Amino acid sequence: MQAPRRPGRWASLPSPNVREAASMYGTAVAVFLVILVAALQGSAPPESPLPYRVPLDPQGTLELSWNVSYVQEVVHFQLLVRTLRAGVLFGMSDRGELENADLVVLWTDGDGAYFADAWSDGQGRVHLDSRQDYQLLRAQSTPDGLALLFKRPFSTCDPKDYLIEDGTVHLVYAFLEEPFRSPEAINTSGLQGGLQRVQLLKPEVPEPALPPDTRTLEVRAPDVLIPGQETTYWCHIAELPQGFGRHHIVMYEPVVSEGNEALVHHMEVFQCSAEFESFPHFSGPCDSKMKPQRLNYCRHVLAAWALGAKAFYYPEEAGLAFGGPGSSRFLRLEVHYHNPLKMEGRRDSSGIRLHYTATLRRFDAGIMELGLVYTPVMAIPPGEMAFVLTGYCTDKCTQLALPPSGIRIFASQLHTHLTGRKVLTVLARDGREREIVNRDNHYSPHFQEIRMLKKEVTVYPGDVLITSCTYNTEDRTLATVGGFGILEEMCVNYVHYYPQTQLELCKSAVDAGSLQKYFHLVNRFNSEDVCTCPQASVPQQFASVPWNSFSRDVLRALYGFAPISMHCNKSSAVRFQGEWDLQPLPEITSTLLEPAPQCPASQAQSPAGPTVVSISGGKG
Amino acid sequence: MQAPRRPGRWASLPSPNVREAASMYGTAVAVFLVILVAALQGSAPPESPLPYRVPLDPQGTLELSWNVSYVQEVVHFQLLVRTLRAGVLFGMSDRGELENADLVVLWTDGDGAYFADAWSDGQGRVHLDSRQDYQLLRAQSTPDGLALLFKRPFSTCDPKDYLIEDGTVHLVYAFLEEPFRSPEAINTSGLQGGLQRVQLLKPEVPEPALPPDTRTLEVRAPDVLIPGQETTYWCHIAELPQGFGRHHIVMYEPVVSEGNEALVHHMEVFQCSAEFESFPHFSGPCDSKMKPQRLNYCRHVLAAWALGAKAFYYPEEAGLAFGGPGSSRFLRLEVHYHNPLKMEGRRDSSGIRLHYTATLRRFDAGIMELGLVYTPVMAIPPGEMAFVLTGYCTDKCTQLALPPSGIRIFASQLHTHLTGRKVLTVLARDGREREIVNRDNHYSPHFQEIRMLKKEVTVYPGDVLITSCTYNTEDRTLATVGGFGILEEMCVNYVHYYPQTQLELCKSAVDAGSLQKYFHLVNRFNSEDVCTCPQASVPQQFASVPWNSFSRDVLRALYGFAPISMHCNKSSAVRFQGEWDLQPLPEITSTLLEPAPQCPASQAQSPAGPTVVSISGGKG
Repeated sequence: MQAPRRPGRWASLPSPNVREAASMYGTAVAVFLVILVAALQGSAPPESPLPYRVPLDPQGTLELSWNVSYVQEVVHFQLLVRTLRAGVLFGMSDRGELENADLVVLWTDGDGAYFADAWSDGQGRVHLDSRQDYQLLRAQSTPDGLALLFKRPFSTCDPKDYLIEDGTVHLVYAFLEEPFRSPEAINTSGLQGGLQRVQLLKPEVPEPALPPDTRTLEVRAPDVLIPGQETTYWCHIAELPQGFGRHHIVMYEPVVSEGNEALVHHMEVFQCSAEFESFPHFSGPCDSKMKPQRLNYCRHVLAAWALGAKAFYYPEEAGLAFGGPGSSRFLRLEVHYHNPLKMEGRRDSSGIRLHYTATLRRFDAGIMELGLVYTPVMAIPPGEMAFVLTGYCTDKCTQLALPPSGIRIFASQLHTHLTGRKVLTVLARDGREREIVNRDNHYSPHFQEIRMLKKEVTVYPGDVLITSCTYNTEDRTLATVGGFGILEEMCVNYVHYYPQTQLELCKSAVDAGSLQKYFHLVNRFNSEDVCTCPQASVPQQFASVPWNSFSRDVLRALYGFAPISMHCNKSSAVRFQGEWDLQPLPEITSTLLEPAPQCPASQAQSPAGPTVVSISGGKG
Repeated sequence: MQAPRRPGRWASLPSPNVREAASMYGTAVAVFLVILVAALQGSAPPESPLPYRVPLDPQGTLELSWNVSYVQEVVHFQLLVRTLRAGVLFGMSDRGELENADLVVLWTDGDGAYFADAWSDGQGRVHLDSRQDYQLLRAQSTPDGLALLFKRPFSTCDPKDYLIEDGTVHLVYAFLEEPFRSPEAINTSGLQGGLQRVQLLKPEVPEPALPPDTRTLEVRAPDVLIPGQETTYWCHIAELPQGFGRHHIVMYEPVVSEGNEALVHHMEVFQCSAEFESFPHFSGPCDSKMKPQRLNYCRHVLAAWALGAKAFYYPEEAGLAFGGPGSSRFLRLEVHYHNPLKMEGRRDSSGIRLHYTATLRRFDAGIMELGLVYTPVMAIPPGEMAFVLTGYCTDKCTQLALPPSGIRIFASQLHTHLTGRKVLTVLARDGREREIVNRDNHYSPHFQEIRMLKKEVTVYPGDVLITSCTYNTEDRTLATVGGFGILEEMCVNYVHYYPQTQLELCKSAVDAGSLQKYFHLVNRFNSEDVCTCPQASVPQQFASVPWNSFSRDVLRALYGFAPISMHCNKSSAVRFQGEWDLQPLPEITSTLLEPAPQCPASQAQSPAGPTVVSISGGKG
């Protein structure tokens, strides 16, 4: 049971009480002081602490901490409100909109204060949920602000509720500046709010012990003056000492300068290519004209961190090799500063701390690229809400390249360009889908973490890996073709695995000859001129396709039927021996069902309406 | 509250009690005697009576009565078990299978008796539901047998539960012959059971008063000896009196011979064509070689009834004209006897009682045919689980043929041949879907009723009516083309409306020239030989298509894109004036969302597990 309130503590909050606030309706300075749960639930605080934490808004007024219980399939949230006005909205939505969001609302009508499970419709109107699946457990005033503790099951079976699943979750928030009679009086479109992306369902992987000879290396920005603009990618070249031998990275973690927690969005450390003896030192925006061209050869990922992520531990048996002969001494740090308030004068020295050992572990870890070849033959028609492209790593390639005992995938980083919305990699064996390697139904190109898998996936020779990406091209008028450009697209899953093999790339693209048949066919049907002459490039041909439901549907049919060209490569240029063109599409006879969400058994405790929270003044 | 049990009544049941049954485990004669609800719910019997009733099994051992509350969105069921052995399964499933069914189970473990909400998986294994959404209200021994009263919401939001919606519901049942320790020990595949199709959500349309001069005419089978075979369609010609004037049918109802309630599956009365002076009298199986050819000209539906349906009332302002000049005096009655037990020697005089008036109502009712033209250009590839074909009644046709004040559709009869699985008609205006005219997500070609709409739909000039049928051709190896044959397909919605107009047919088919382009295109892509020469018929061309995902997907793309040919006809042969070929497909910019099922608010009353039902012996 919770402790009775101790008025002495609340007095420290320098704010008028909520009854006064009622008389100030219309002004924007209403502040809750003390909120006590009408203690129906009798739930104690969660047994375990809340290990994960992110700031929600750029000022850090709202901060979310949480933990995950996979046994109960419940998330405990603690929302810390450092400065409370007349209330707060917090929740989740498909892609971070405040419309069509699943929300908790903390509001006052001037007299009482209430907590409720609600949702917003497509117009931003807020509605109470018929089932109250967010349960308030505790409301506590702390020296840092008001802390609301509540929980929610992953899945509620209420179609108005967001399904909490693996991958990216778009958290949304907004501030209420005045009392509302009821949540139905609120419209999110008039509120100040925003979004924050996190991986809510963090994996529960035990942290392996670090070897006793572990040393650390910090790759950090050199006291950067963060530009007063929304988006900056900062590039900084670091250098390993001369003669630095071969080591295994066994863990890495973020080092974020204090106070900049809401500004540092993500960071990556890349190793430069060994084909150049040295790289120029540079520290500046990555898109600067001053940036030396050669830095484009620093693309081999060593470490990647994004907001909300904690330390990344390699499995006990494996480490990521760096240093030593055949590897470059030069590293590129890239830091993404997200500064929507365009604050000036902030300095930052954030970076990544690599933990490495000279006592090499049993296995080198490797990184393999799955998905689509970077080629324009794979294209997305314009105006599509959810067009899917699929890349294959075929049985023939895994048969040739993987050891009989297989490889173990332990982490994965999904990658698309701007129109990517979902990514999924599935493992199939003997024509049947068996296991999901990684899936993100709310993928955002602005949030690319290396994610530990909840369970390692073993891939044996003869297995097939199928990577599908879903794109949204509603705002485009021409086809989006595959390629390296930011306005072109990719569909990639970088899987981290051990033991390392020679296979670096296992990707596919549609057979180019079949695509030419497609252009012919569209010409014939639409009596229009897509040039099918040899001098027209594929992007030119795609640009002249008259897009309508027929040319779109037939392109989709082509991708689902035509033979493929495989890249089964040792490095980006060297193929394994064999015939890789005109390969048949893997035949899949049984697909994995979407897991039906588990409905929690009727919860006698969950209230049918809002929870009344009793408020007492700060002066008592 | 229910009355305390009165042992005297139970004594009338001539059966051993369930405790004895326990010792007879393994034999199949266990019988429950008295079952009293562990009275947690405190629910009284439903306020209103149970107006709808069907026998479930051919012997009539199980009989279901029910009512519907649209306000509470709940169905009350009463299952009458005339002879109870060790238990009963009852429930609903997509198409009448006992696998993947939503079930209630009444079972005994030898000691106690239990009632629970359960479901069966794809292998027929029975599982308890995590949420108990079927609620037992009363278990009562009656002179006719054991009557179990229970209720269930239309929608439970439990993905394991069947969603009760408009249209056909496949009820399933099975008998337990021995005690089971738990429902999990039951597998439906070993049980004797079956299915019954009903429209569960009957419309709540008030019955208009009949005019005082209403007279009746019974069109009945002439003491037919029901053949000892599973399926018989009986044809019988009846004749109106000479000089029978023009009347309005205002109501009709079934007349089913007592004892044959489980055998008479459906009945229809057709009016013969006026183009022939007279029709030969005939009474015999419709597929008899003795049946006169001319009876094929008796196809104009006057009345249709199917199992579970009650009387059909025309709207107050309208009646269906029959008799008088220009209409035939000959009627054809068709009775479908469903006799799976192949009982011999049963006699039957069932039929339909027409209620008609000479005082003509303000409006003649009309029947209009929506959907697809009966032509082979509309085809379904083989091996498809759910292929959709769509027929249009275009704005151009309704603009021309409907009065400015529109027509009101009040009833609808859906029609396909054997592979039809779903039918839907939607009304669109200004490119936006507005209203569902009729929908059946569990349509069966074996259950074609005329159904009153829950709400009349007004169609104005310029509106579009879109009728889609979903087909399952998994058991076919060649394409299924449109046509009259039983192995060909149709997609039709006969809508009943008033005031009558000249428009009898408003249907479409894909433009034949575009289909030829399709055959060319498939040839080019597959390098195979679909004859595109003029002498090949469309069915021949379809028969030579090499079916694969590409030819299937491109056919679907064609149907979704190519121009259409309209039949906007006064009668089956006479078109309205205008250009009806090469019409554009109606453009629909916004579709109706699937209505999200309403989840009932947390029901504190619903038990989390089986309801224990206390059993007392019959000897007490």
